[in-house]
Amino acid sequence: MDHARPLPAYLVNRYHGWKATIYTENRGWYRRLAEDGQHPRSMVISCCDSRVHVTSIFGADQGEFFIHRNIANLVPPFNPDGHHHGTSAAVEYAIRGLKVAHLIVLGHSGCGGVEGCYNMCSGNAPELEEANSFVGRWMDILRPGYADLPDGDDATRKQALEKASVVISLENLMTFPFVKEAVAAEALSIHGLWNDIGEGSLEAYDPISGAFKEI
Amino acid sequence: MDHARPLPAYLVNRYHGWKATIYTENRGWYRRLAEDGQHPRSMVISCCDSRVHVTSIFGADQGEFFIHRNIANLVPPFNPDGHHHGTSAAVEYAIRGLKVAHLIVLGHSGCGGVEGCYNMCSGNAPELEEANSFVGRWMDILRPGYADLPDGDDATRKQALEKASVVISLENLMTFPFVKEAVAAEALSIHGLWNDIGEGSLEAYDPISGAFKEI
Amino acid sequence: MDHARPLPAYLVNRYHGWKATIYTENRGWYRRLAEDGQHPRSMVISCCDSRVHVTSIFGADQGEFFIHRNIANLVPPFNPDGHHHGTSAAVEYAIRGLKVAHLIVLGHSGCGGVEGCYNMCSGNAPELEEANSFVGRWMDILRPGYADLPDGDDATRKQALEKASVVISLENLMTFPFVKEAVAAEALSIHGLWNDIGEGSLEAYDPISGAFKEI
Amino acid sequence: MDHARPLPAYLVNRYHGWKATIYTENRGWYRRLAEDGQHPRSMVISCCDSRVHVTSIFGADQGEFFIHRNIANLVPPFNPDGHHHGTSAAVEYAIRGLKVAHLIVLGHSGCGGVEGCYNMCSGNAPELEEANSFVGRWMDILRPGYADLPDGDDATRKQALEKASVVISLENLMTFPFVKEAVAAEALSIHGLWNDIGEGSLEAYDPISGAFKEI
Repeated sequence: MDHARPLPAYLVNRYHGWKATIYTENRGWYRRLAEDGQHPRSMVISCCDSRVHVTSIFGADQGEFFIHRNIANLVPPFNPDGHHHGTSAAVEYAIRGLKVAHLIVLGHSGCGGVEGCYNMCSGNAPELEEANSFVGRWMDILRPGYADLPDGDDATRKQALEKASVVISLENLMTFPFVKEAVAAEALSIHGLWNDIGEGSLEAYDPISGAFKEI
Repeated sequence: MDHARPLPAYLVNRYHGWKATIYTENRGWYRRLAEDGQHPRSMVISCCDSRVHVTSIFGADQGEFFIHRNIANLVPPFNPDGHHHGTSAAVEYAIRGLKVAHLIVLGHSGCGGVEGCYNMCSGNAPELEEANSFVGRWMDILRPGYADLPDGDDATRKQALEKASVVISLENLMTFPFVKEAVAAEALSIHGLWNDIGEGSLEAYDPISGAFKEI
Repeated sequence: MDHARPLPAYLVNRYHGWKATIYTENRGWYRRLAEDGQHPRSMVISCCDSRVHVTSIFGADQGEFFIHRNIANLVPPFNPDGHHHGTSAAVEYAIRGLKVAHLIVLGHSGCGGVEGCYNMCSGNAPELEEANSFVGRWMDILRPGYADLPDGDDATRKQALEKASVVISLENLMTFPFVKEAVAAEALSIHGLWNDIGEGSLEAYDPISGAFKEI
Repeated sequence: MDHARPLPAYLVNRYHGWKATIYTENRGWYRRLAEDGQHPRSMVISCCDSRVHVTSIFGADQGEFFIHRNIANLVPPFNPDGHHHGTSAAVEYAIRGLKVAHLIVLGHSGCGGVEGCYNMCSGNAPELEEANSFVGRWMDILRPGYADLPDGDDATRKQALEKASVVISLENLMTFPFVKEAVAAEALSIHGLWNDIGEGSLEAYDPISGAFKEI
């Protein structure tokens, strides 16, 4: 592996600063985390987007959240075909290994992945339809959500699709036998959230109304 | 989607606290992020493990890092077979869409996913060999690393395998044509790191010696 | 322009070293900054003093801070009289063009400009009172701060005047319509800091108590 | 001054990290800088642009460079009219107070201020012609450079204007009696540089050819 390069100096400096302060002040906790392993209460499935920091929003420190982040916070349907499934592996590990008590899917406004899906489904991004588009094939998971969008302008429909990405992921989660069983056994509760980045608001999916409501 | 449940009250409370303080004090920034979109300098591929917070280590706030987190911070080899590939989609989006300048793979000590791979490869976790084990099939990506482990006790070999997860991911990254091209064009540099959770240390992969060295 | 001279060799050497290392290791980032332009989160108004490096204190790399530096980190009152106003131009560019989310005024200990103002106002630097003293006329901006100084010895009063240079600049900033509007629209937050060079401490202006408090 | 807000937490954390590492490791130097005052060898006049860090390029630490940064690294002509002149005050302080031995004007590629001037002079930015445009009135300093631009496409002419901003500033510096005297006494040498951000190159103004040459 010849191509690896040294870390930029500004990150090295910041790391040294972290080690001398936050790490040092919490050394007992970090060592216990290392010795006892992790015991997170919740799993969070969030987007890779640099603007969404679930640990900041919920004041969570090391050890609280087992966090999987992918494009558009999607969970594919259960499909044990022997291939690599990073998201399914993360869910399996959290539920069966760590036995998390909560599984939170967190969507957000202005999601570039969802926008790509919207453009693809409306015929405006043919490049995403190509077989070798990883983003396009990943966003296929959300394709069923496009068909159910309400009428309206593009901005309204894109936001609805962002929220659909949360609901479809929750639905797909329930296709995993071990998720279904954990929910049935009341060992696990699942939650759907959507964050408006600019307004800092958080809306939760309400299964009774089928809508997202500000919390 | 009937199974979604309300968010636990303690998280609702913390969210309200965040909104009244950190969000409010940075509202201008959040709004600009919402309006202008993200311009992250770097992508980070890190583990889902609740004990590893790359934003804390590097003092990074919203907008700096595009973060993909999966089990054992793995990147599968390039394989555009038309199926869902969450990690490959995230890399594609970061390189081709966001044009990040750095791609950092961050491994860590005590990685449960790597330990599972180690047990599986040494014959001690037959359940992970089953076709329907998502974790097992995901950890297959790291299987080539097991064959190259040095002699030694289990702890030493597991740690070597954690570091191999970083190097193999870097190698697999270079099988993606758009990564290879961006590196060749000097638009992208890639970096391998390993974090000792208990000691708070950070080691960087050095391509000259082929070893990880504390930074 | 006949008077320009070649750069001293030691600076040429250092530049070549920088280019072969820091530049090369971050080439992708520099090129993206060149192609996409800057998107800084914050503007900093700091002193020209060679001892104050805001990028070092905050671990900031290229692209983060839009930095204006003048004598004593002063902002003059809004005065659109058609003349050259370098500081006002920088603020206008940052707020209206770049739409920065934070504006930080950073004062510091041992400020020579503030000391000159103190001496001028106390009658000990008549040369600064002359119409053709650029330093004296620039420090006139801080003159209102002298009248409000508490009793005490010279050292105490000079330090109070350094902190007044921050507060007066924040007040003057609010006389710019576009600053006032951005603050009212919660698109911008303003911050006052004072750095003790020798002790490495940083104090923040607290509007409730009207005092500076160590952070 | 009611509007000041607390510093964002990520900057507070980074500052504490800096204090525990870089400051602590250099405490002796910071304390001596505080007690003895600054003795910088050079003054640098650079742009506010977040992408240009002269201390990084030249490996300069606290104490080396007295740095004034304004839009487009401009120096206005000598004009002791009794008004506030921040740039002239900084030059006066550096030459007469600190007796710097070098004065470096550093321009750069992709300068937004220069582009504004170019658009204004070519009739494409009427808003910058208005009396109350601080940016426009500041960029008037560079207006004489527009008249002398060579023929060519816009990109070529803008870059030529960026270099003209350096030369005009050097010429204006020589209109200050104390600069002229210091140069005549061989106490001061002046230098003109232009930095290509994306390429990391540095070109120096050569008074013999009247051109900028890579160093």
